[in-house]
Amino acid sequence: MKTWITNGYVYHYDKRRMERKDLCIEDGKICEICSPGQGERQGNIYDASGKSVIPGFIDVHTHGGCGVDVNDALKDDFEKIGHFFALQGTTSWLCSILTDTKEQTIKSIHEALKHQKEHANCANLLGIHLEGPFLSVEFKGAMPEELLRKADMELLKEYQEEAEGNIRYITVSPEVEGIPEAVPEMKKLGITVAIGHSGADYETAMKCIENGAAACTHTCNAMKLFHQHFPSMMGAALESDIYCEAICDGRHLHPGSVRLFLKAKGYDKVVAVTDSIMAAGLPDGEYKLGVNDVVVEDGDAKLKSNGVRAGSTLTTGTALKRLIDFTGAEMEDVLPLLTMNPAKLLDVDDKIGSLEAGKDADILIVDEGYNIVDTFVKGKKIER
Amino acid sequence: MKTWITNGYVYHYDKRRMERKDLCIEDGKICEICSPGQGERQGNIYDASGKSVIPGFIDVHTHGGCGVDVNDALKDDFEKIGHFFALQGTTSWLCSILTDTKEQTIKSIHEALKHQKEHANCANLLGIHLEGPFLSVEFKGAMPEELLRKADMELLKEYQEEAEGNIRYITVSPEVEGIPEAVPEMKKLGITVAIGHSGADYETAMKCIENGAAACTHTCNAMKLFHQHFPSMMGAALESDIYCEAICDGRHLHPGSVRLFLKAKGYDKVVAVTDSIMAAGLPDGEYKLGVNDVVVEDGDAKLKSNGVRAGSTLTTGTALKRLIDFTGAEMEDVLPLLTMNPAKLLDVDDKIGSLEAGKDADILIVDEGYNIVDTFVKGKKIER
Repeated sequence: MKTWITNGYVYHYDKRRMERKDLCIEDGKICEICSPGQGERQGNIYDASGKSVIPGFIDVHTHGGCGVDVNDALKDDFEKIGHFFALQGTTSWLCSILTDTKEQTIKSIHEALKHQKEHANCANLLGIHLEGPFLSVEFKGAMPEELLRKADMELLKEYQEEAEGNIRYITVSPEVEGIPEAVPEMKKLGITVAIGHSGADYETAMKCIENGAAACTHTCNAMKLFHQHFPSMMGAALESDIYCEAICDGRHLHPGSVRLFLKAKGYDKVVAVTDSIMAAGLPDGEYKLGVNDVVVEDGDAKLKSNGVRAGSTLTTGTALKRLIDFTGAEMEDVLPLLTMNPAKLLDVDDKIGSLEAGKDADILIVDEGYNIVDTFVKGKKIER
Repeated sequence: MKTWITNGYVYHYDKRRMERKDLCIEDGKICEICSPGQGERQGNIYDASGKSVIPGFIDVHTHGGCGVDVNDALKDDFEKIGHFFALQGTTSWLCSILTDTKEQTIKSIHEALKHQKEHANCANLLGIHLEGPFLSVEFKGAMPEELLRKADMELLKEYQEEAEGNIRYITVSPEVEGIPEAVPEMKKLGITVAIGHSGADYETAMKCIENGAAACTHTCNAMKLFHQHFPSMMGAALESDIYCEAICDGRHLHPGSVRLFLKAKGYDKVVAVTDSIMAAGLPDGEYKLGVNDVVVEDGDAKLKSNGVRAGSTLTTGTALKRLIDFTGAEMEDVLPLLTMNPAKLLDVDDKIGSLEAGKDADILIVDEGYNIVDTFVKGKKIER
């Protein structure tokens, strides 16, 4: 049975433009995008009059939401997060497992896998993001210091085996012993490598980039900042052609910082991430992030122990609005940050990231105020 | 009498390309650029076989060279500097007067004017750059603190009258009382405004930019650096469309920093400056910069009192080589940083900055190693 989304303005990635088109879904895929009046509209009709039809958002860095912490989540919890995310605009995501004990990490991996294999009415879990454990102590952020360690490919291979190849993304610190050399090995395991949580100098960071690191984790946050004599990892990230994650909640990055990223990197090399924690979608209060206690005040999440900012309460839907606010740009220009850029980063842009015949029908219907009205994941409308 | 520069490769700014052309000079101007074989070559012939023919460099920020300090220079000293500069590749320059007493500043202005009115065999002094006195104490660099002051348009008007309108450029700190509001008034006096020596926050810096500030003085040096929550003047300079001065000696800026500027600003919005002091062109030793004692070791100039870096010993010719080294780009790509960008910044791009019929014949002949072989200023070859 076909479903037609009619009368809407459909996003065309290559043109960075909204076009008055009708879009047809069949078997979970986009099967046709055509001009009004072209052909017949048989099957279910979704009337998108006055709405925009855009690709679902891809969040490559999130620790949870709606009361669930990825590190502590069971199969059903993942579905709960995934449902919440879908309503907020995320149709595909990586669950970011914070540095944890080996046992807990493997348990989290197993629960994520169970969810991947059987779920309904939620966003699509693309795989796992490991934030650690090969991270620097100096910029550990919310990582438990005693669990940080030097590059250990045997451990990572074990994790990847347990994950049945579903670890898709890892954050490493360039200055950690063995990391620059390990980057190519990690890539061979099918893992996209991001550099972050780091006090690395420019040269060491560049070595990782030359060796294949493809992104920088929450750029400018939890890293040594640029100095004109010592540009550091931040300088390397901004100057090179890797993707730069950006937490666009207005707290982690001043709007001028977001604009600087876009000025330096262009709209095709910044990836909007939420880095959200279990408190996303919930009121202020006390929460967990991995092993840490976190206090959220006015939506701002900080470690209870030392006041260090620890993730966000951002959603992708809000990130879209913020990006439009911060840049003064059109939705058409900022959409790649939430769609095609993360798809390209993870090398899944043949399946998701834009609205094209043959791609997964991961689709958002948004109103004039950029609110998410409805979400389709692989062609199925998410029920509230 | 015409002079033909024949057999060389002539720089075409719009195309960013070297072209096999012959160039004709008459009455100090470029009168014709034509293909080999087109027309006759009557008059003097300068054979530029195997050489590049490029526009003369424009240095908008320099305190001297070859033993002469601008603040202390008499008419003939200016000619000495100008001759030295011309041999190094600079055909037009602004003399940067460091913050000084009113009496000394006016004296320097008068000496500069005398030189402007009568000189020979040297670079063309376009006018005066005032580095101060409306600068912050916090980032004073080599400025004498007791002479720094809040915005004072009466004083600046007096200077501009004494200079007969030849103050072309001024560096101000955005956070100094009255500066954001004074920027439009300074522009009315015919002065291009640069922001620098500053701990200003992003918003205050942006106010100056919105009010017409057109450049940032020796970007990243003597200023509060970027922080993701407080992007500061540095963030405003890099994110906005103003010109960014860059001291490309490899000391003031790590090569990666220069590349970051170019990544963020593009090759059309970075202006290479020397910020050179009297020690440029001379061996290591002790020198003066305004009222300061400076020690130069291994070509690196620092205040004797506190070791703060104080200007450079860079020349424009060396800056060209460094830029090519740092970027891996072709000479064709980096030339605008030394030619058309400063010309546009000072609004003199109708007269200088590129090789076009009708423009001043400010021309360099450079060999394959990017060494300056000969310099023409307004059509006259500089004699050594």
